[in-house]
Amino acid sequence: MRYLLTTTCLGAAALFAVGTANANDELLKLQQDAKQWVMPTGNYANQRYSQLKQITADNVGKLQVAWTFSTGVLRGHEGGPLIVGNVMYVHTPFPNMVYALDLNEDGKILWKYEPKQDPNVIPVMCCDTVNRGTAYADGKIFLHQADTTLVALDAKTGKVVWSAKNGDPSKGETGTSAPMIFKDKVVIGISGGEFGVRGSVTAYNIKDGKQVWRGYSMGPDSDTLIDAQKTTNLGKPVGPNSGTNTWQGEQWKIGGGTTWGWYSYDPDLNLMYYGSGNPSTWNPKQRPGDNRWSMTIWARDVDTGQARWVYQMTPHDEWDFDGVNEMILADQQIGGQNRKILVHFDRNGLGYTLDRTNGELLVADKYDPKVNWTTGVDMNKSSPTYGRPHVVDQYSTDKQGEDVNSKGICPAALGSKDEQPAAFSPETGLFYVPTNHVCMDYEPFRVRYTAGQPYVGATLSMYPPAGESHMGNFIAWDARTGKIVWSNKEQFSVWSGALATAGGVVFYGTLEGYLKAVDAKTGKELYKFKTPSGIIGNVTTYEHGGKQYIAILSGVGGWAGIGLAAGLTDPTAGLGAVGGYAGLRNYTALGGQLTVFALPQ
Amino acid sequence: MRYLLTTTCLGAAALFAVGTANANDELLKLQQDAKQWVMPTGNYANQRYSQLKQITADNVGKLQVAWTFSTGVLRGHEGGPLIVGNVMYVHTPFPNMVYALDLNEDGKILWKYEPKQDPNVIPVMCCDTVNRGTAYADGKIFLHQADTTLVALDAKTGKVVWSAKNGDPSKGETGTSAPMIFKDKVVIGISGGEFGVRGSVTAYNIKDGKQVWRGYSMGPDSDTLIDAQKTTNLGKPVGPNSGTNTWQGEQWKIGGGTTWGWYSYDPDLNLMYYGSGNPSTWNPKQRPGDNRWSMTIWARDVDTGQARWVYQMTPHDEWDFDGVNEMILADQQIGGQNRKILVHFDRNGLGYTLDRTNGELLVADKYDPKVNWTTGVDMNKSSPTYGRPHVVDQYSTDKQGEDVNSKGICPAALGSKDEQPAAFSPETGLFYVPTNHVCMDYEPFRVRYTAGQPYVGATLSMYPPAGESHMGNFIAWDARTGKIVWSNKEQFSVWSGALATAGGVVFYGTLEGYLKAVDAKTGKELYKFKTPSGIIGNVTTYEHGGKQYIAILSGVGGWAGIGLAAGLTDPTAGLGAVGGYAGLRNYTALGGQLTVFALPQ
Repeated sequence: MRYLLTTTCLGAAALFAVGTANANDELLKLQQDAKQWVMPTGNYANQRYSQLKQITADNVGKLQVAWTFSTGVLRGHEGGPLIVGNVMYVHTPFPNMVYALDLNEDGKILWKYEPKQDPNVIPVMCCDTVNRGTAYADGKIFLHQADTTLVALDAKTGKVVWSAKNGDPSKGETGTSAPMIFKDKVVIGISGGEFGVRGSVTAYNIKDGKQVWRGYSMGPDSDTLIDAQKTTNLGKPVGPNSGTNTWQGEQWKIGGGTTWGWYSYDPDLNLMYYGSGNPSTWNPKQRPGDNRWSMTIWARDVDTGQARWVYQMTPHDEWDFDGVNEMILADQQIGGQNRKILVHFDRNGLGYTLDRTNGELLVADKYDPKVNWTTGVDMNKSSPTYGRPHVVDQYSTDKQGEDVNSKGICPAALGSKDEQPAAFSPETGLFYVPTNHVCMDYEPFRVRYTAGQPYVGATLSMYPPAGESHMGNFIAWDARTGKIVWSNKEQFSVWSGALATAGGVVFYGTLEGYLKAVDAKTGKELYKFKTPSGIIGNVTTYEHGGKQYIAILSGVGGWAGIGLAAGLTDPTAGLGAVGGYAGLRNYTALGGQLTVFALPQ
Repeated sequence: MRYLLTTTCLGAAALFAVGTANANDELLKLQQDAKQWVMPTGNYANQRYSQLKQITADNVGKLQVAWTFSTGVLRGHEGGPLIVGNVMYVHTPFPNMVYALDLNEDGKILWKYEPKQDPNVIPVMCCDTVNRGTAYADGKIFLHQADTTLVALDAKTGKVVWSAKNGDPSKGETGTSAPMIFKDKVVIGISGGEFGVRGSVTAYNIKDGKQVWRGYSMGPDSDTLIDAQKTTNLGKPVGPNSGTNTWQGEQWKIGGGTTWGWYSYDPDLNLMYYGSGNPSTWNPKQRPGDNRWSMTIWARDVDTGQARWVYQMTPHDEWDFDGVNEMILADQQIGGQNRKILVHFDRNGLGYTLDRTNGELLVADKYDPKVNWTTGVDMNKSSPTYGRPHVVDQYSTDKQGEDVNSKGICPAALGSKDEQPAAFSPETGLFYVPTNHVCMDYEPFRVRYTAGQPYVGATLSMYPPAGESHMGNFIAWDARTGKIVWSNKEQFSVWSGALATAGGVVFYGTLEGYLKAVDAKTGKELYKFKTPSGIIGNVTTYEHGGKQYIAILSGVGGWAGIGLAAGLTDPTAGLGAVGGYAGLRNYTALGGQLTVFALPQ
């Protein structure tokens, strides 16, 4: 309808229409070109799967380093580069530099963008000064800076085309997540759940940065863009004011539910998918009720932002099990039926499979057998608690109460998986999941909200499950059945995003700094290489000059590596991560490097 | 004689004697073991030659990266690692960390030493916060920190065994050079010629850090450890007070002649060799006279520090042509005679060959044909100016005078070569020299001395020689004849130390970040690899588990890279280097990484 215009303004309007159509068409096409890697998630389905197959299970053992690049920034390097044409775009943690590197010349620097940002944003970044990457569309590179500035850079020159301010760091609002481009919009979330930030997702016009819509995680329906009748939860209308009526008083205004994960998109359904984070504070006693719609999987219409359906995984969170992890879209047969599914590995330790057309819950099972806070999800459609997890009293920090140290809860607050994205191979039909194998003690305490100050309200310590010494697993998961197919132990959490390839090889990185390649069918380790620093980045692949390359950012940090990244030594610092991952300092030191691999000539 | 003791104190004395003998014997033996790299210069002769020959001119093209390590520090990484047994010791620029890495496990960190140093030392480091490495002896690792603390670390644990203070940073005295162990002594120099520091070399006992002797570059004979009769200059006694009688008034007290280069040692002669730096200030009008013994090659007795002979290469320096570059020892036939020679590539652009037994000048020739400040050295032994360079008036900043901008002087202040050490192959008989191919404009001005403040007195700009665009060459030099055998152009100065090997391959790094391997006979490029950051470190080789490895530190910086390292943009900053090397930012960014190479399985 938007192309129907009067002839009087046809010139300008046609230009706009063409631009709009192009941005969408261009990306729809580019994301299918395995030679490039044009969005941080690989494709709209967030599958992180590449059809490239020069590197195979047979020859990956011969992989070698082709070239390398230092970013000039220390601390945690999450995300990964984009590859558009002959150019690679590499981003860094704060100060959020972007480099355009010439693939024709071993990564010669074509341009560099370095924003001037107030360093006061650093203390309000909960879990290292990370940034998860950039987006490309319409000849521009989009970057979401720590200070919440969304900036559009000319992809050829690095010059700023436009910028928009998404939040206010003085209130604890920060930018860490990668933008995604859906149609003619840049979509970004916001970080700051540990500062009482109320989460929202905002769409900006890629042409001029003008805000198109914003949907909050909680609040009145006008804020959440929820329609009391049309928006459904497990198949039923949510009813009016669902974003406020499970909160006490106005706690929803500082209710958390931030939105810093990876976003996926189904062009056929015109829906985008993402998760909202923990309710604020971490002390559950201070916020009775389900705290909707924190901890929720969202399906929103890309044009209007309106919520099509929602599903809250962890009502009334008591453990900081943020629901932000990525939603991977695939089409699989379940119970003899072809299903458009959405697969999500939640921090709470459950792997969910839903019908993404309507939010129907198909599978919810533990993807780490040590998960103990719940006995599982009520899958009985006629039950009044349908879709809710059964909580074990011993591990309920709400039932145990304030100032009680609940011990041995699995997983720890950083979840059985955090932002480190999983991959899916349509060939094997399996999901490849980097996981944390970590438990915790959790002691909630009363905390008072002050804008811009930490609003946590819990003391934590983290450690491997009882009787075990390894803190991570890299697993293959069957989302149709909710079963682990194979599992590889790792000494530390696997805090790197996975990559699946048509060559039958799956890649991931380790906190010690190894890039590893395993057989997609069996998990057998086929190759490993020690990169300069611990890996919390996501593996990327592309083809250039007829050759397949594998690229990975090293740079230890993130929540798991915050002790190293920020030089912390108190074991309870970093919300318990410093003590949990203290051994990491025996393996790696800070860095910020890209390592690019290929087969020998 | 020191072993003759009365029986009454035999126990303790014998222990001490054994320790003393061991440190020397151990290193004399270890430095000949090609599998290890036990001193920063490779061996006492400073040849940076390895007898390892698994990597050859035929197979070096197949070299690949074996493992990598990030140091966690940005800015310029000079020097290189030590390899002692199964452990690699890696050092960093300020804050001068030392890592002990386990070669049996891809560089797992056995221990890390991180000194607490006052960051106020940084502003008094003239040319980046570099450190050139550590030394090993007697189960200890010796480190010369930026704040001039010399520290002995237990090589097994990293614990401090003893420490000694060598200077005072509040006066501009800093530590950048690598210690060397000669017999039972740790020998270190001092940096700060741009702050009016009077240079000295100091020997400390390796057992307890007690100072044994100190010899200054200028001052009374009691300070310089010069014997008016026994110490010779070109075969003649220097006479009394040679360290003060070519200075006006007490200018020698702030006379420069700092001592931050690489030191060599001839165990048979019991002599150590090194060079002293520029006289302070850079404005020659402020210090009439020859300014002895700045810009001098020194031969000192290791036991007493007494000077055996001296040779001043650039009397009354007018260009900052520090004489600190390394002295390489070799035995070669010159004019049909076997000679114990010392070869030195000076900042002033002349390659010197001397008889190291007595300081006789054998060869002095330009190793870059663009050198224009001098027409050459007077080699006529009966001439009154024997051994002195003929200075061209046009390029004499003294003759041109204060506040006159002398243009087109070649080389620039950073010399045809700076600290980046050359290598020597006994097989080819050639020296492999990383060079700067850079000219300058130089304008001296009057400056007043204030302790701890810059005392430079000249404004510079740097650029390639007229009509050329490349700023470096990597050359092979015949020190017997004073001729360039072959020369490879490089876009930027070659600020990396070279390595020659018995495999017929010579290695060096480039400021863009390439590690390169060339044919020792022809200079033909056989291999290159782009490491994460620009290389100003020195190439090292060792053998572990039957395999030959090549190791190099990346980390752009140093004088040439100071613009990048310190984020400077004014082209005249960095004493002219910022403008001269501005193009470097198109190739590389800051980093600090070790890259280790080997042939494939």
